[in-house]
Amino acid sequence: MRMKQPLVYVSRKEHFNAAHKLYNPNWTEEKNKEVFGPCANVNWHGHNFELVVTVKGIPDPDTGFVVDLKRLSQLIKERVVNKLDHKNINMDVDFMEGKMASCEILVVEIWKILEAGLPEITEAKMHCIKLVETRNNYVEYYGE
Amino acid sequence: MRMKQPLVYVSRKEHFNAAHKLYNPNWTEEKNKEVFGPCANVNWHGHNFELVVTVKGIPDPDTGFVVDLKRLSQLIKERVVNKLDHKNINMDVDFMEGKMASCEILVVEIWKILEAGLPEITEAKMHCIKLVETRNNYVEYYGE
Amino acid sequence: MRMKQPLVYVSRKEHFNAAHKLYNPNWTEEKNKEVFGPCANVNWHGHNFELVVTVKGIPDPDTGFVVDLKRLSQLIKERVVNKLDHKNINMDVDFMEGKMASCEILVVEIWKILEAGLPEITEAKMHCIKLVETRNNYVEYYGE
Amino acid sequence: MRMKQPLVYVSRKEHFNAAHKLYNPNWTEEKNKEVFGPCANVNWHGHNFELVVTVKGIPDPDTGFVVDLKRLSQLIKERVVNKLDHKNINMDVDFMEGKMASCEILVVEIWKILEAGLPEITEAKMHCIKLVETRNNYVEYYGE
Amino acid sequence: MRMKQPLVYVSRKEHFNAAHKLYNPNWTEEKNKEVFGPCANVNWHGHNFELVVTVKGIPDPDTGFVVDLKRLSQLIKERVVNKLDHKNINMDVDFMEGKMASCEILVVEIWKILEAGLPEITEAKMHCIKLVETRNNYVEYYGE
Amino acid sequence: MRMKQPLVYVSRKEHFNAAHKLYNPNWTEEKNKEVFGPCANVNWHGHNFELVVTVKGIPDPDTGFVVDLKRLSQLIKERVVNKLDHKNINMDVDFMEGKMASCEILVVEIWKILEAGLPEITEAKMHCIKLVETRNNYVEYYGE
Repeated sequence: MRMKQPLVYVSRKEHFNAAHKLYNPNWTEEKNKEVFGPCANVNWHGHNFELVVTVKGIPDPDTGFVVDLKRLSQLIKERVVNKLDHKNINMDVDFMEGKMASCEILVVEIWKILEAGLPEITEAKMHCIKLVETRNNYVEYYGE
Repeated sequence: MRMKQPLVYVSRKEHFNAAHKLYNPNWTEEKNKEVFGPCANVNWHGHNFELVVTVKGIPDPDTGFVVDLKRLSQLIKERVVNKLDHKNINMDVDFMEGKMASCEILVVEIWKILEAGLPEITEAKMHCIKLVETRNNYVEYYGE
Repeated sequence: MRMKQPLVYVSRKEHFNAAHKLYNPNWTEEKNKEVFGPCANVNWHGHNFELVVTVKGIPDPDTGFVVDLKRLSQLIKERVVNKLDHKNINMDVDFMEGKMASCEILVVEIWKILEAGLPEITEAKMHCIKLVETRNNYVEYYGE
Repeated sequence: MRMKQPLVYVSRKEHFNAAHKLYNPNWTEEKNKEVFGPCANVNWHGHNFELVVTVKGIPDPDTGFVVDLKRLSQLIKERVVNKLDHKNINMDVDFMEGKMASCEILVVEIWKILEAGLPEITEAKMHCIKLVETRNNYVEYYGE
Repeated sequence: MRMKQPLVYVSRKEHFNAAHKLYNPNWTEEKNKEVFGPCANVNWHGHNFELVVTVKGIPDPDTGFVVDLKRLSQLIKERVVNKLDHKNINMDVDFMEGKMASCEILVVEIWKILEAGLPEITEAKMHCIKLVETRNNYVEYYGE
Repeated sequence: MRMKQPLVYVSRKEHFNAAHKLYNPNWTEEKNKEVFGPCANVNWHGHNFELVVTVKGIPDPDTGFVVDLKRLSQLIKERVVNKLDHKNINMDVDFMEGKMASCEILVVEIWKILEAGLPEITEAKMHCIKLVETRNNYVEYYGE
């Protein structure tokens, strides 16, 4: 008799501190202020972002691991956090060029990068990315 | 070639401080004490409630928004939080009249109100309401 | 040569969920509303209170303890938490009779009770009581 | 006309403090160090684990409850927490014998125990178990 | 016999999200990078700052208050938070002109402003300002 | 006229995950169980410890720093955290040999190490060490 193979979700939280503004360069300063309010402050503002990456897979009985969390953490840091931490999301981040620097857009771009990189370190699959901007606001993306 | 349109989940946390008791008026005092224990204390007790509202939708490329969080926050405050904050859930809240003042019942009533109001401010759809009563207890409702 | 005897501060956090209102019975309803705003809601509101009790003393080298935390926790629960948890601070709590149900008054009354009881379980001395009412408001009292 | 019967998710958080190591007894010490790094420290290390159990069901209109949280808490403590709290997961826990002491394996074993016990106290069904190991790492299992 | 008048400490937490960089304009770019590392990123980074203001005084027996927290919160918002929230600390904040935009310098400047304003709303005295920059770093100032 | 030189307190939080037991080897097993209860479990248990180190000093106007937090963090990691993280406090930690593995004793030993090392990196002085063992228990030491 075979044991049923359980599907377990594993999450790793990382952090980055970044500046951004919500600002559409195709609009006037006035329209930006009207739509985005203080978030459009021309000289930027910033946040401590929390990034939670959840992958899913079947634990390896020899290690007990779905994924080696050290390697998952390294992947997130090398491909995502190092490009965002102590940076300006509108100005310094190649994968955000020409896009609005909102959490909704950012979380989708982070998904694309990690989904492409994950097979290099594990057979587990991407499940969710959660991006926390303030203690009251966060977004999630499931690749749908 | 069209870009796939991503479905992003956006969450907003609000707070209210309220009194309540778990008390069925059709039962004797003794039966209430037996079933609800200290939660039936006739003179009430209370909590700092956390309310997390999650909506889902496709980000607008011009704003980067699934929903304007200022407007979502206003909707939650006007329709829900202002009716509950610094109130007695059993006595002061019109939409809870005749209902048990439990988190399970409350979260469903909050869903109904916000689901009705959401189309006034956004094309995004309700996804989940989470209501946190203590640091160890919370409930969630997905409209199912 | 004697080792210097270090003075170590030990803190224990407990919790209680209670109803209260800020309401001076010698004032009119209007004056109460004017001074206390929504906190004067006649039908009460409530909070999840956190109570942190800090004592100080010299660790016993045989146990490594300044105070047995199980006994400190029991003392706090028996003398304080059991009288406040799932209660109405204005109506149900003997040591608050005739006093304003504010955190500032409550923290001083809790100090008096615990300072009187502490010598029954330890030679350590009371240092501070912290009472957290919401995630943004708290009070502390040092017995001064 | 019948009211639609809502499906509400109710979560209870418990805690345990335990020692463990990530160590495969079929491997050499060197291979264990290579794969698990400091987590393989032969003399153990430990964590404050958070355990969140989520069940789902239809609230009883007489009580407002999906499940009596006191009874759910008791079930979790008697069957799971009491076997793990202030214990060594590799050495002291019967249901982990012969298994890797990772969170992924542990969360599945906890699910089995609670799924078996839940019908004794409620008609609600198991939905999810979340096991938090550090402030940056956690796992979830949905019985799939 | 007079009751002893207790000295109670009351704390209020506020928040602001701001951009800054650690950058000394009298130094070369190289020296800034050497001393401040990624914090000197020329295009800024940012944080969610928490600001905790603690005042001390004797509770008024008629109100139970050391200070009206609504008024304290308003003072902090009008004089401090509104000047920092969704701003660039190096560029947008009058009281930081010509100063290093570090937490150590910022907390002292915030103290000066609030110490000057506090007598307008209360007889309570300033005790401490705590400024939290990340979940691992914070500073405190007691006016010494 | 000279500006008054402000004394600012700067805190850095680090973490370690360790096993320990409260166990006096000069006592019988029975006496250990009687005094320490489940904390004496012969096979150990463990915690996620938080360590907050607070130093005080005058900010350097050229850097805005009381202390370079990168160097403070390195000092704490090299001298303290690396010796405790993923270790057994009773068995693996040289500076705890022959001492009770309680937080009260541990916090004093950590103070001695950091007080000796701090002058190598800064003129700031040690102020406090806080060691958090669980979400309800913590100790502090001020070198007194």
